[in-house]
Amino acid sequence: MYFHVQRLIHDIAQDEPDPAAANALQEGLGGQFGEMRTMMQYLFQSMNFRGPAAKPYRDLIQGIGTEEISHVELIGTTISRLVDGSPRYQGKVTDPLDKAGSGGAIPLEIALDQGNIHHYLVGAQGALPVDAVGNPWSGSYVYNSGNLVLDLLYNLMLESTGRLQKCRIYEMTANKTARSTIAYLIVRDQAHENAYAKALETLGVHWNTLLPIPKTNAEKFPEVKKLLDLNLHSKQYTFDLAGQSEAGKIFQGMSPSKDGTNLVADEQAPEGVPSVIAGERMEEFAPGLDPALMELIQATADMEMAEVDVSYGPAKAAAKAAPKTK
Amino acid sequence: MYFHVQRLIHDIAQDEPDPAAANALQEGLGGQFGEMRTMMQYLFQSMNFRGPAAKPYRDLIQGIGTEEISHVELIGTTISRLVDGSPRYQGKVTDPLDKAGSGGAIPLEIALDQGNIHHYLVGAQGALPVDAVGNPWSGSYVYNSGNLVLDLLYNLMLESTGRLQKCRIYEMTANKTARSTIAYLIVRDQAHENAYAKALETLGVHWNTLLPIPKTNAEKFPEVKKLLDLNLHSKQYTFDLAGQSEAGKIFQGMSPSKDGTNLVADEQAPEGVPSVIAGERMEEFAPGLDPALMELIQATADMEMAEVDVSYGPAKAAAKAAPKTK
Amino acid sequence: MYFHVQRLIHDIAQDEPDPAAANALQEGLGGQFGEMRTMMQYLFQSMNFRGPAAKPYRDLIQGIGTEEISHVELIGTTISRLVDGSPRYQGKVTDPLDKAGSGGAIPLEIALDQGNIHHYLVGAQGALPVDAVGNPWSGSYVYNSGNLVLDLLYNLMLESTGRLQKCRIYEMTANKTARSTIAYLIVRDQAHENAYAKALETLGVHWNTLLPIPKTNAEKFPEVKKLLDLNLHSKQYTFDLAGQSEAGKIFQGMSPSKDGTNLVADEQAPEGVPSVIAGERMEEFAPGLDPALMELIQATADMEMAEVDVSYGPAKAAAKAAPKTK
Amino acid sequence: MYFHVQRLIHDIAQDEPDPAAANALQEGLGGQFGEMRTMMQYLFQSMNFRGPAAKPYRDLIQGIGTEEISHVELIGTTISRLVDGSPRYQGKVTDPLDKAGSGGAIPLEIALDQGNIHHYLVGAQGALPVDAVGNPWSGSYVYNSGNLVLDLLYNLMLESTGRLQKCRIYEMTANKTARSTIAYLIVRDQAHENAYAKALETLGVHWNTLLPIPKTNAEKFPEVKKLLDLNLHSKQYTFDLAGQSEAGKIFQGMSPSKDGTNLVADEQAPEGVPSVIAGERMEEFAPGLDPALMELIQATADMEMAEVDVSYGPAKAAAKAAPKTK
Amino acid sequence: MYFHVQRLIHDIAQDEPDPAAANALQEGLGGQFGEMRTMMQYLFQSMNFRGPAAKPYRDLIQGIGTEEISHVELIGTTISRLVDGSPRYQGKVTDPLDKAGSGGAIPLEIALDQGNIHHYLVGAQGALPVDAVGNPWSGSYVYNSGNLVLDLLYNLMLESTGRLQKCRIYEMTANKTARSTIAYLIVRDQAHENAYAKALETLGVHWNTLLPIPKTNAEKFPEVKKLLDLNLHSKQYTFDLAGQSEAGKIFQGMSPSKDGTNLVADEQAPEGVPSVIAGERMEEFAPGLDPALMELIQATADMEMAEVDVSYGPAKAAAKAAPKTK
Amino acid sequence: MYFHVQRLIHDIAQDEPDPAAANALQEGLGGQFGEMRTMMQYLFQSMNFRGPAAKPYRDLIQGIGTEEISHVELIGTTISRLVDGSPRYQGKVTDPLDKAGSGGAIPLEIALDQGNIHHYLVGAQGALPVDAVGNPWSGSYVYNSGNLVLDLLYNLMLESTGRLQKCRIYEMTANKTARSTIAYLIVRDQAHENAYAKALETLGVHWNTLLPIPKTNAEKFPEVKKLLDLNLHSKQYTFDLAGQSEAGKIFQGMSPSKDGTNLVADEQAPEGVPSVIAGERMEEFAPGLDPALMELIQATADMEMAEVDVSYGPAKAAAKAAPKTK
Repeated sequence: MYFHVQRLIHDIAQDEPDPAAANALQEGLGGQFGEMRTMMQYLFQSMNFRGPAAKPYRDLIQGIGTEEISHVELIGTTISRLVDGSPRYQGKVTDPLDKAGSGGAIPLEIALDQGNIHHYLVGAQGALPVDAVGNPWSGSYVYNSGNLVLDLLYNLMLESTGRLQKCRIYEMTANKTARSTIAYLIVRDQAHENAYAKALETLGVHWNTLLPIPKTNAEKFPEVKKLLDLNLHSKQYTFDLAGQSEAGKIFQGMSPSKDGTNLVADEQAPEGVPSVIAGERMEEFAPGLDPALMELIQATADMEMAEVDVSYGPAKAAAKAAPKTK
Repeated sequence: MYFHVQRLIHDIAQDEPDPAAANALQEGLGGQFGEMRTMMQYLFQSMNFRGPAAKPYRDLIQGIGTEEISHVELIGTTISRLVDGSPRYQGKVTDPLDKAGSGGAIPLEIALDQGNIHHYLVGAQGALPVDAVGNPWSGSYVYNSGNLVLDLLYNLMLESTGRLQKCRIYEMTANKTARSTIAYLIVRDQAHENAYAKALETLGVHWNTLLPIPKTNAEKFPEVKKLLDLNLHSKQYTFDLAGQSEAGKIFQGMSPSKDGTNLVADEQAPEGVPSVIAGERMEEFAPGLDPALMELIQATADMEMAEVDVSYGPAKAAAKAAPKTK
Repeated sequence: MYFHVQRLIHDIAQDEPDPAAANALQEGLGGQFGEMRTMMQYLFQSMNFRGPAAKPYRDLIQGIGTEEISHVELIGTTISRLVDGSPRYQGKVTDPLDKAGSGGAIPLEIALDQGNIHHYLVGAQGALPVDAVGNPWSGSYVYNSGNLVLDLLYNLMLESTGRLQKCRIYEMTANKTARSTIAYLIVRDQAHENAYAKALETLGVHWNTLLPIPKTNAEKFPEVKKLLDLNLHSKQYTFDLAGQSEAGKIFQGMSPSKDGTNLVADEQAPEGVPSVIAGERMEEFAPGLDPALMELIQATADMEMAEVDVSYGPAKAAAKAAPKTK
Repeated sequence: MYFHVQRLIHDIAQDEPDPAAANALQEGLGGQFGEMRTMMQYLFQSMNFRGPAAKPYRDLIQGIGTEEISHVELIGTTISRLVDGSPRYQGKVTDPLDKAGSGGAIPLEIALDQGNIHHYLVGAQGALPVDAVGNPWSGSYVYNSGNLVLDLLYNLMLESTGRLQKCRIYEMTANKTARSTIAYLIVRDQAHENAYAKALETLGVHWNTLLPIPKTNAEKFPEVKKLLDLNLHSKQYTFDLAGQSEAGKIFQGMSPSKDGTNLVADEQAPEGVPSVIAGERMEEFAPGLDPALMELIQATADMEMAEVDVSYGPAKAAAKAAPKTK
Repeated sequence: MYFHVQRLIHDIAQDEPDPAAANALQEGLGGQFGEMRTMMQYLFQSMNFRGPAAKPYRDLIQGIGTEEISHVELIGTTISRLVDGSPRYQGKVTDPLDKAGSGGAIPLEIALDQGNIHHYLVGAQGALPVDAVGNPWSGSYVYNSGNLVLDLLYNLMLESTGRLQKCRIYEMTANKTARSTIAYLIVRDQAHENAYAKALETLGVHWNTLLPIPKTNAEKFPEVKKLLDLNLHSKQYTFDLAGQSEAGKIFQGMSPSKDGTNLVADEQAPEGVPSVIAGERMEEFAPGLDPALMELIQATADMEMAEVDVSYGPAKAAAKAAPKTK
Repeated sequence: MYFHVQRLIHDIAQDEPDPAAANALQEGLGGQFGEMRTMMQYLFQSMNFRGPAAKPYRDLIQGIGTEEISHVELIGTTISRLVDGSPRYQGKVTDPLDKAGSGGAIPLEIALDQGNIHHYLVGAQGALPVDAVGNPWSGSYVYNSGNLVLDLLYNLMLESTGRLQKCRIYEMTANKTARSTIAYLIVRDQAHENAYAKALETLGVHWNTLLPIPKTNAEKFPEVKKLLDLNLHSKQYTFDLAGQSEAGKIFQGMSPSKDGTNLVADEQAPEGVPSVIAGERMEEFAPGLDPALMELIQATADMEMAEVDVSYGPAKAAAKAAPKTK
């Protein structure tokens, strides 16, 4: 069973809208080696897992899989910010036939030749479940052979490829919004790569100096370096509400990347940051409410809500103030 | 940010394996109107939501979306049980070249003409991200126009169609494992149908006697009736850990289905049941560990795990005993 | 601009439901060489046609394309009859949990192992836009190079392949409902094959004895023979309401199949037969109206309709009696 | 059975070629909510319709479905004009290796970075059955649950989404060729939206002020306003040759959009405009006839055609002069 | 540049036709982990290879890739034999309307409920480029990151998964035609698995006892054991005509599977067996020649062919007698 | 069985990188009428061929099919050169965060708006198995009806369409690297077109002046003219190592293109040119070896390779010097 808290797993830096960068990031969301894929692959591997004796391996996969849902949420939100509005366009469209001032363009005018036109035409300046050339995500991506060694080997390759692609995307754009999320995912992919490599180590493999793959020198990317200095690539969260995960039996000891760090799995989840709701876009008719409907919406928003008894999670008041992790 | 607890959202009844029923259930998992679709559609609608004033609507969608992940987990696990082994086959395959006793068949022998051969050939007797004719799930299914009214209208139609298909599946099979999950999802789909219909009511629509769609008389299905008697079709959970959801501002008052019930949203989550890990399948080489690897696995399983500090959720000991909801 | 008349282009023989035959016929509807493909291919070729001097060729393609829409209607209706109910099942399902008498099965029970389960699960015992293995029809099938010779060559090959597949389907089933439509389409495909072969003859090709392709000896199929005896394979209709088609400048003279017939294009359309609306299917919740909704429907049906002035087409009264063609 | 007349359902304004606008329009042709989809969806819903008592609903769907074929023809032709030649390029390519004069570019040179390269490479400067990012149209788009209420609800959402996307396309381009067709389809989509909303009204739903969806203020688009002033959004044609359609029993009375108009269904079809055949494109080898083949084509064109007896439709001479509707 | 010799890489055992087994084998041909995939993946990895210093690795991949084309030829031919005719059907169809004798069925009659109907309907009892549930092979399967370590890791996983699936297919059928080819491919996949594992060993990895993956005990399959006894799993051919391959620098020394064998790469190619052309199938109209066309074919076959100068390869006469390898 | 020699079938001219041209060429590699398609189609037609008496036709198809593998290799290598680096960029990326000098851009920076971003993001500046709009190659492209006449007719149309598209690509770009390969393939496609047209001539068809299709006047393209002057469009190779091909019984006599040449099939293969391995791309982490791994690679490269006995093909020493054809 899954739960949610209205916080993003990592903060997103502010910068100009950038539809071309958004499109590149789509590979990290809906591409063959993106977050939707890891999320679904680990979910299926967890459901179909065989071998009660191998529970720590199942828990490792399941915990990473839960984290990937939050990654989908993070990169999706990042993309939606990158396509929200238009570069160098001040102000807000107030009429579908607006003209932009000098130095910019109305968002829908740039849709014809930048990034993916569906961001503006099918979505309302929001993320899509597709890759960077517009192919919809496909269930055929999911790998789940049932053979534990093969599944671990595939997952290792999958995380490494995801990180490889994100390093390439990092080089493609200087947009800070894009880079802040990409950098975070580069480091977390490396943590997952370490997790699967370590799991294979427990089955006898010695990696010698092969890891990390790729040898990206990603520590030269400043946003990445900052996170590596926090050892975020050697840390794994459980995201498990009742403390039943045994992933820590695997994710411990010397990192298979031989970088001098030790793997640590002693936190439930990162603290995250509050998520916010994006503003309206009149040119997209999103949410598209006229004054009459707006009034009805307001009536609902003003209502006094029934009290929910919060069982999993801290008291509501405390949660609003600061949902803490160790 | 998302969290997980090692419990299934609803119990699954015991019965014989049934590959044909499993295949029909695949439509409810990976079909165009199945749980993977609702899960992804509501996740995208939540990430891309516009209009801070409409937060209760976002929270309603987000909460249902979180529930759908647990539905994917439930129906996926159900399918994996339905294809685990073979009908009327006693005992366990101990050799890839085993022959079954009278009255049954080795699982891989039935793979050629029952259900979906991929359940046995690509997966190891487990669920797949495909529909009932083997089409992989596609990102093109996700609808997220950004226009609030259209998104709500689509979601209403989506839940109703999901329920329609599940009612048809119910009639297709008498297998109790299949029917217990199908019945639960029929009732929960109706709750979601009520949620979106109610949201449209707050925008002025009067449904008169149109709902529920379809008029299934599903209350004649005994497993369904039992759940309806508990008003499970008029209840919505938040699955929100910090009590920030405002979905209850919409999901309240008289049910749009005009069945005399009131909509109630005062619980965080159902109690659920513990999830278990399936046994090995030697004929599938899953997990496929020989004695040497088995010994290494055991060493990992025996390890003493590092303590995780549980922030969201009750104390670990209590959780293991009985993760309660109101 | 297109028009419709509520008549089927050819009659459909009565026989038992037959889901396996229905599934085979899906290839003729939604397969790569089926009627949806020819319909769409000729529609695109007509819209994108270049060369005003070549108008007779455009008109030939456009006229056949219009006929193909009626073929989609014919084969779709045939499939819906073949999956309407269940073989050897007397009576009508009156309750979703009905049990059939001896000698038959409730339709939804046979869905698990006969034909395409989507006929019962996604559709309500009706035709689908897919091929015989469940692949959805794809726009990538449409060929329209813009080069007239290539387009004609492709169309010739397309019609011949369609006929080849239909001859194979004919051999696969003895069901009379299936065979009556298949036989009609075999003969019309041959007429279209003759049309494109003749068009290439006007460009200099001599076919010698190569046509028809395949050499099916389909005249041995009794239903086919009957139609060949009427020279239906050497006749082309215009389906053109205002008599502007110049297709007859090509479709005339000796048949390229060298069978002693002459090509004739002097009729607007065949007479056809009235189309009827299928009955309800309670087990599919189709149309799924309860007594309250049924009453509302009846009120609408009873209404006195506004008079429509019929411009294209004969007087309404006459049309109802007998919409004649020469 | 279907018929055709060589007229477009609406006129297309003249303007420069514009490959980027053409590409955006592809969404309206081959996209998930485009005209190929509505055409096919309504064709399947009509063929598979259940419930003789509900004939007016079937006729409503069937009539709109017939109109959609003409919409495919209209938007397809519009796209083919938008990619016919190259902006600011005077004259005509006379040699595949031509160079353009100043101020323009040879069409095939712009293909590499504008719109969809397939318009020039796979097609010969013509429309394609794909969406605006090049995905081929898919049969999986077609929705036909068999449940009347769900099918109507889906159709309402479908037409509204189609209109939403077209409003966005309108804002994306100022090209008059593109806008004239988009404006017409915006208004006709609204008529269809009204049709399905009204059908649901006959089943008891009250829409209050929810319609039209989206609230586009599209009346601010001048080309749209002109058509709204003619009440084209409150009019439905039957396209039925024999006057058997009962759609008018539903499409009558006050518009569900509450705009003060009444729904009227008293015409068979709009008058339309004559369609013309596009010129040659030597750089595409389309139609690609050398002098020898050209001579053979001419011989065919000069032939005296056999007389066709026109049964459905007015006398040929009159039709050529002016195929009228009321 | 590629060359061909009219020999199959391995012999195919004789047995009854078996459409269900044929369908399972399609996974090994056109499935995501089948021979078309390995063939294409290694072809792309070879073309796009970077790093002149790593030539032995390129040559290893290229050599295996060349072998995979012969595997496609082998498994494709095996499938075409398994669907050629019908089980327990004596004699030959001589008329499309033939009836079978007792104890069997005409091939086209079994098409409706066994295996993949396309084998009989789209193909003429021949292999198809699809997987075991009918999904067409897709270019999206090809993995070629450009990072050498990742490509090797993926290839190792790919070969292991291919072998896993073939072991499962082996268990699914007792048909000797199917098993002879499956057994050969199991052993060759293991050789390729060894090749990529060894390549990773040269980069520092120690596999300990992890290989082979899966631990199939496939040596219990008699047809497999026979080939393992010949050390065919520890042998690699170059298929390189000019002796330029440096793959032997990697494929040598102790097998990474730790089975006591040494890897050997000292042969160009296996000897193979002559390939033969299948007989006609009148019921499929394949090749579909009537007496008139047959006579023309015969005239061509009787012609005296021009002499081809054979540069690569032994003298023609010798080759016909016995194209030997060491 | 297939063999390989490390030579390209034709030389590739040097020019600047050109991602837009590379993208256009993808149609010729992975498009519906590209080289992957011809290669696979002829491979399947050869495996599934029926009719021993028609061996010359099988051999013709099989020989062309073998050539197509070399065409895939040629066009794939051409594309990888066109995306290797960046136009007007001097020097070599030495750090993932490099900045380019004036007049150029770092390759990954141009990826966002030129050609197909996957060339840089999923591949490492290399060819992909997709078409020019990014659709992955699909097995559904393969046509193999089993009817000899239809298969030949399709192949004729296929080669002609391939040539038509390549003529259009030629006009789209002036890049010499692109044009040298395109020109070669135009001429070879014409040879294959002649082959299938001639095969149909042996079955009785007279083409008169219809061929070649299209009438491209491609002889005006200088690179094409040079190859036509060598009669390369009237020559066919066998690529058959043991001289068993009987294709020459068909490919002989007057060309069906009526251009005064005679068809000649007296050579085994063209001479080709040596293939080379591309350099590293640090910004792509391809091959991505750090100094430690590089050292291990070098150790492997330095090894003394085991001697391979070359059976098919000339002595190794001679081959290295000059692998000749007549």
